[in-house]
Amino acid sequence: MNRIITVLIAFLYMFTYAQNDEATLKTIYKQSLTNGKSYEWLDYLSNEIGGRLSGSENAQKAVEYTKSELEALGLDKVWLQEVMVPKWVRGEKEEGKIILNNENSTIKIDVNICALGGSTATSDRGLQAKVVEVKSFEELEALGKAEIEGKIVFFNGAMQADLIHTFEAYGGCSKQRYSGAYEASKFGAVGVIIRSLSLRQDDYPHTGSMSYQDLPNNLRIPSAAISTNDANTLSELLKKDKNLEFYFKQSCQQYDDVLSYNVIGEITGSEFPNEYMLVGGHLDSWDLGDGAHDDGAGVVQSMEVLRLLKESGIKPKRSIRVVLFMNEENGLRGGRKYAEVATQNGENHVFALESDSGGFTPRGFSFDCSDNNLAQIEQWKSLFKPYLIHFFEKGYSGADIGPLKNENIVLAGLRPDSQRYFDHHHAANDTFEHVNKRELELGAATMTSLVYLFDKYGVNQIKGEQQIKD
Amino acid sequence: MNRIITVLIAFLYMFTYAQNDEATLKTIYKQSLTNGKSYEWLDYLSNEIGGRLSGSENAQKAVEYTKSELEALGLDKVWLQEVMVPKWVRGEKEEGKIILNNENSTIKIDVNICALGGSTATSDRGLQAKVVEVKSFEELEALGKAEIEGKIVFFNGAMQADLIHTFEAYGGCSKQRYSGAYEASKFGAVGVIIRSLSLRQDDYPHTGSMSYQDLPNNLRIPSAAISTNDANTLSELLKKDKNLEFYFKQSCQQYDDVLSYNVIGEITGSEFPNEYMLVGGHLDSWDLGDGAHDDGAGVVQSMEVLRLLKESGIKPKRSIRVVLFMNEENGLRGGRKYAEVATQNGENHVFALESDSGGFTPRGFSFDCSDNNLAQIEQWKSLFKPYLIHFFEKGYSGADIGPLKNENIVLAGLRPDSQRYFDHHHAANDTFEHVNKRELELGAATMTSLVYLFDKYGVNQIKGEQQIKD
Repeated sequence: MNRIITVLIAFLYMFTYAQNDEATLKTIYKQSLTNGKSYEWLDYLSNEIGGRLSGSENAQKAVEYTKSELEALGLDKVWLQEVMVPKWVRGEKEEGKIILNNENSTIKIDVNICALGGSTATSDRGLQAKVVEVKSFEELEALGKAEIEGKIVFFNGAMQADLIHTFEAYGGCSKQRYSGAYEASKFGAVGVIIRSLSLRQDDYPHTGSMSYQDLPNNLRIPSAAISTNDANTLSELLKKDKNLEFYFKQSCQQYDDVLSYNVIGEITGSEFPNEYMLVGGHLDSWDLGDGAHDDGAGVVQSMEVLRLLKESGIKPKRSIRVVLFMNEENGLRGGRKYAEVATQNGENHVFALESDSGGFTPRGFSFDCSDNNLAQIEQWKSLFKPYLIHFFEKGYSGADIGPLKNENIVLAGLRPDSQRYFDHHHAANDTFEHVNKRELELGAATMTSLVYLFDKYGVNQIKGEQQIKD
Repeated sequence: MNRIITVLIAFLYMFTYAQNDEATLKTIYKQSLTNGKSYEWLDYLSNEIGGRLSGSENAQKAVEYTKSELEALGLDKVWLQEVMVPKWVRGEKEEGKIILNNENSTIKIDVNICALGGSTATSDRGLQAKVVEVKSFEELEALGKAEIEGKIVFFNGAMQADLIHTFEAYGGCSKQRYSGAYEASKFGAVGVIIRSLSLRQDDYPHTGSMSYQDLPNNLRIPSAAISTNDANTLSELLKKDKNLEFYFKQSCQQYDDVLSYNVIGEITGSEFPNEYMLVGGHLDSWDLGDGAHDDGAGVVQSMEVLRLLKESGIKPKRSIRVVLFMNEENGLRGGRKYAEVATQNGENHVFALESDSGGFTPRGFSFDCSDNNLAQIEQWKSLFKPYLIHFFEKGYSGADIGPLKNENIVLAGLRPDSQRYFDHHHAANDTFEHVNKRELELGAATMTSLVYLFDKYGVNQIKGEQQIKD
């Protein structure tokens, strides 16, 4: 009889527990969808401030604005963390042209172009040369110096359209952008243009970071992206006329590093104040659009997590921090600095969640953690079913939180629907009107729900100051 | 030993079977994403033809265009099915104004307005009256004739933002639009304006069908929708000034029924030609936008199902029909006619799938069928996991295929992400540029995959010409 009563009590306890969690998630989602702040914050970041490239005046405005908004939430602490960041400036609007030299005349076709972040400028008169098209570094190598020297290399590898996860398609050709100039320069190329990393056919060129690595200055050749429509046009024209030329002009410049900041807010934990859980996104963005999806969305969703916890009456046991990282796009200095300081201070980070995949409808999370921890987290999956959150898979969690990785921490990345993301990524059409209010708010609620559950139940840690198993 | 060999053979058979299905789905998705026709067809329907209200010249153009495109696919049969449809015409652009009568002056505020489909016109000079705001039929009844007679009733019930499935939020207040004029007229109202059925705050009025049911002509009061922004403005102003007036003018008109068509194409089954599987959407649309999401997307996805089957080398055992229904929006005549003719001809329909929820990223299907059949279908769910298709739930499947319902048939509805759908639904911004090519193509591939699996494996039928269990 005693045994039956014990089982009954255990059952009732579990039932009530689950009921409480269901009710809490419902409160969180309702708050976000009917009384959320994320969209209003994003409106300000996107439309009042705009593109926020590291080292720019707008980046500084974004630091001040988000700090003041976090202060208004009545968190336990809000502070700025100093970090030196690179400063690259695009300069004047770039020009690009395809030049067809016929017997009697010259035809010039305007091309939509933008300098890649970190690229050198062309001379004031621009750069003009013949073009050699390749789709991979292997093709580049096969052609060799004889075919490449003195020419502009056109990297035309396209994102693979039949991959369902568009980030995989991006990963498959982003090295063209990042290392294209470095590789082409070895064979004597004088410049590089790349096909924009987008799955859509349109007229937007997409920027993004590139690196010359250890190349001496005289080998640092100008590097730019052209739109997918223009990439197709150029490729077609090259088939008819191998001797056509490409002209481009850009006046971008790298300056000395400048002082900037990560913006941090904290709700101090009621039971385990020395265990830290982090939610974050990056405050900097590229300069062509207003950075609404990349990563304004992640910034305001992360701020909203702390607001929703407070508004839903949840008092976390662990310390919850929102971190708005500076300089993810072209240096990752903010993410590195945060991890460095955390190590210096001996802070025990048990969880970090990044939102940096756009503000689209959330589908779930990727987790960078042990199999055992993932199995524990998957027990909460059914609580998310009413919100159509179904994706709980191992995978990359985010650049800014990457430096926190160790064998104990659970790193997680919000995974929104990715089909439209690269239509906007790093381009002039990454703007506020392409973020849907409800989709953004669903993401914030989904993040908050995971933070709530992790704070409440924790997961086993391999080692650490204490066994976490509530 | 024999037993072990039998188990082994069974296992290998099942494994190969599953491997084949995995490979087939992969082929289908790849075809759709890299070599699809759906987006090109939608471009034509949206941009070359445009809005396709039943009985209009554009609706006729859409019939001719889709018939000719289906013929070009080399199907076994393509034909038109005659159906008489209502013809309602909007007339000139509508006008709406809030009128504030102060002591010394009159202020007029322009309002974004559109007549509801099926509404009567105002007089040539328009209709002007005081306004009474309600949020439900219960409130209307509580106010009664004393408060309502001679006034314009303003139905301001908003879609419930914290419902995750936006179609539920729509269902919760669509009767305001459909029956608002009928209900208000009983209490002597002279006109009706409704808050647009959208979850977004913006300036677009959203039309849609309404009905006077059995009301005599003299009680058929003009009925229109105003944008959500204007609904908020009007509501705020009414709080300050109960005596403000509303003015609107519309010249819409109902004509006699006209002849139109369902467009039908068929691949005849190789083993069970008399068992029919249907995929469809509706060819008509509202007149304000170009009907790209509602339901151009469903039309081209349904056409694409048959093309993808052919391109993927699949020879269906059962007869697969694409049906492009006419007049879903304001009459459902096409859906009713199709079911009527199918019954007359004694056609055994075993499956019908409708796409009429927009061209957004597919999440899965709703199924209107027996529990037993749903359990059988759920066995295929794991095959869809690589495509992030996770939603297999009982539910409403679609208006056009509804009349085919019986105890044997499996009715299914494609369920795309619904968060943005009502931002565009029945409004001037339901246009081609808001449909994403990949999302549309993923939907077509998801539909094709289900059709392929159902054709291959079938489900048990309760009765019928034969037991279907391959």
